[in-house]
Amino acid sequence: MRAKAVFYHAGCPVCQSAEQSVVAALDRSRYDVEVVHLGTDKARLPEARRLGVQSVPALVLGTQVFHVNFGAALGDLG
Amino acid sequence: MRAKAVFYHAGCPVCQSAEQSVVAALDRSRYDVEVVHLGTDKARLPEARRLGVQSVPALVLGTQVFHVNFGAALGDLG
Repeated sequence: MRAKAVFYHAGCPVCQSAEQSVVAALDRSRYDVEVVHLGTDKARLPEARRLGVQSVPALVLGTQVFHVNFGAALGDLG
Repeated sequence: MRAKAVFYHAGCPVCQSAEQSVVAALDRSRYDVEVVHLGTDKARLPEARRLGVQSVPALVLGTQVFHVNFGAALGDLG
């Protein structure tokens, strides 16, 4: 069974760079990667906050949050 | 041929977390991952600076630098 990975972003250039490099480099045979656009999918904002996401882009592996560079604060997304 | 990935760290808890999760999740069939401890291998500091690493932990994929959370500023390492 693959572990869950969730990449939260907002379509920003920094987000796109992280998605195209870091997320693209993940081992898909071991990780089931979901990409969530918090700018358009605002219903997922509470979940992201609960997990500890403070800014995007952020990669959540299991329960651990990794903020990858800085694109936008979560508070600016809604 | 595998692409090069370099993970710069300084042994800090934030660094260890990133190494055990993000670096461990990389696809080793596509990436040749090198782990550099800048706290003990200070000779690599100029190279890290040149690449644009400002803090550790940082993951460099090709020429792109991704600062993963914040452990320590490069300036504090020497």
